[in-house]
Amino acid sequence: MAPSTITPVILCGGSGTRLWPRSRKAKPKPFLPLVGDETLFEATVLRCPPAAGFGPPVVVTGVAHLEHVEAQLPDLATAQVIVEPIARNTAAAIALAAHRLPADTVMLVCPSDHHIGDVAAFQAAAREAAGLAAQGWLVAFGIAATAPETGFGYLRRGAAIEGSGGFGVAAFVEKPDAARAQAFLDDGGYSWNGGIFAFRAGTFLDELKAHRPGLAEAVRLSVERGHMDGRRFHPDPEAFAEVESESVDYAVMEITTHAAMVPAAMAWSDIGNWQALHDAQVRDEASNAVRGTVELRDCTNVLVHTDGPRVSVIGASNLIVVVDGDEVLVTTREGAQLVGKLSGAANQ
Amino acid sequence: MAPSTITPVILCGGSGTRLWPRSRKAKPKPFLPLVGDETLFEATVLRCPPAAGFGPPVVVTGVAHLEHVEAQLPDLATAQVIVEPIARNTAAAIALAAHRLPADTVMLVCPSDHHIGDVAAFQAAAREAAGLAAQGWLVAFGIAATAPETGFGYLRRGAAIEGSGGFGVAAFVEKPDAARAQAFLDDGGYSWNGGIFAFRAGTFLDELKAHRPGLAEAVRLSVERGHMDGRRFHPDPEAFAEVESESVDYAVMEITTHAAMVPAAMAWSDIGNWQALHDAQVRDEASNAVRGTVELRDCTNVLVHTDGPRVSVIGASNLIVVVDGDEVLVTTREGAQLVGKLSGAANQ
Repeated sequence: MAPSTITPVILCGGSGTRLWPRSRKAKPKPFLPLVGDETLFEATVLRCPPAAGFGPPVVVTGVAHLEHVEAQLPDLATAQVIVEPIARNTAAAIALAAHRLPADTVMLVCPSDHHIGDVAAFQAAAREAAGLAAQGWLVAFGIAATAPETGFGYLRRGAAIEGSGGFGVAAFVEKPDAARAQAFLDDGGYSWNGGIFAFRAGTFLDELKAHRPGLAEAVRLSVERGHMDGRRFHPDPEAFAEVESESVDYAVMEITTHAAMVPAAMAWSDIGNWQALHDAQVRDEASNAVRGTVELRDCTNVLVHTDGPRVSVIGASNLIVVVDGDEVLVTTREGAQLVGKLSGAANQ
Repeated sequence: MAPSTITPVILCGGSGTRLWPRSRKAKPKPFLPLVGDETLFEATVLRCPPAAGFGPPVVVTGVAHLEHVEAQLPDLATAQVIVEPIARNTAAAIALAAHRLPADTVMLVCPSDHHIGDVAAFQAAAREAAGLAAQGWLVAFGIAATAPETGFGYLRRGAAIEGSGGFGVAAFVEKPDAARAQAFLDDGGYSWNGGIFAFRAGTFLDELKAHRPGLAEAVRLSVERGHMDGRRFHPDPEAFAEVESESVDYAVMEITTHAAMVPAAMAWSDIGNWQALHDAQVRDEASNAVRGTVELRDCTNVLVHTDGPRVSVIGASNLIVVVDGDEVLVTTREGAQLVGKLSGAANQ
């Protein structure tokens, strides 16, 4: 029994330094047009339209990013915005949203800083997940692994769930080393855990209460004592400060006996660094991709993003060049994972 | 018989696009601090101090660069500045200076856009050349070839000139192809013609008159009809416009029967492109060299120049990064020779 509508719960947390200097503390990754013309946040909202069975979104964000959220929400009038006084990780953020929805609402939890190339595949997986969620499952998207990634957690597929396209979850697996990641890829029974989940609001709160009673109660109190300000809901800061900081994976998904997964092959990327962003972009026949005023000569597999100055590149291969205000980054694709350790990124 | 003093004649012509974007039409290569703290022009003047037997310099420049010349001349009060109304190549520029000096003055013609690492060797070669010039020779510096360069003309050494460290010139050789350049290097009897010459003013004017009477007369007229403006001498523009544009090599040096050369091993570079500039700089143990606010991680043989924004580079090898105002250049060392063909460099 599929629910009448699915409520997107969009999480806008974290800042991240790995896409510095384009992504900065003051305007982080979700609010930048990194892949297409839309920002990652805008694209996340637009992937969940009424025509595909989605209701108005609930956005959970911090005070620091509220301005960006409200400026970029396509339909601010119907959306709910929950403003976290401080960041307390995903278990608390999802619990806040669950408290603000009727218990039988099917929530689809979506990070706002990922790219999904195949929107139709995403929507099909969301419908599948929502159907299982309506039956009481806590459903994770099992994102088709396309490389031996060591930066993600994995899901091991369990038994098929009868009458659905979903499966049980045999295990949640921590980030593997390179050898295990390759073994997972070869095995075929493993997929990436991209932090996209579906469940009923009531189911989630019941599970949270069962497994993390203190965390659940602290969030409940912060909502009970919270207040509205226009369309914004503000949990009580003192109560929310007492909430433990824990991921939804640890607090609920890895513990519950009702975890399920739906396979999703949807050209997903967490845009975890500049190399991943380059891979997610439309590239020319030499694998180059540019944004801004750029001239390339004899270049292969080069990414250039500039917010102003012209960038001219000669003879480079496997190189990333980013110009943003008073910072210029030049890195090999392999070096992109070290961007967060640069002085500029670390000392914002 | 060595002359009492040597008069440096410093040529500030040309603009050049190969060090774009740092070198621009409005402020070209000689007037930029490219290698050390001094500009190439300043270093050219300072290489010829009174203590080493040099008199006050004569600077020949165009209207466009007069401001830079006068701002950068260490001792403007004693220098002569000759302002060319239009550029007419080196034969005319040197003839202008020769007309403004007593006939027995020994001139040392110095381009202002080269780097010389070993100043003592330069000064020793200058003294040697001046001694021959005082005897009536037209002396070229034969710069010790250290690579099979195809971008320079070469001098083939002739017989030793008795009682001096100089030689006759067996031949002036045009820019060779790669195979011939390698043969020249292997032979050992060839050196680079770097455009540094010594001769008496009167000797030069006599030779010019003999081989290029039209050119010589047009320059003479432009001087006769010229005027002083403070310390500046302005040749008559109409007369000077009639002067043929020819290099001193073609007009005099390759024709005269009195050509000589002095060997000069002086860590010379014409700083012909960014790769040459990188090679001329003091580099760290990984062959990196930086100017401005720069952070390098895991880099080898990288040159970074920035006039403002911080540049962070990760994992690069054999790469050149230049930030100048509204332009950013990223090129492999090999690609540096193509810089002049970039839109930004070509359409200034």
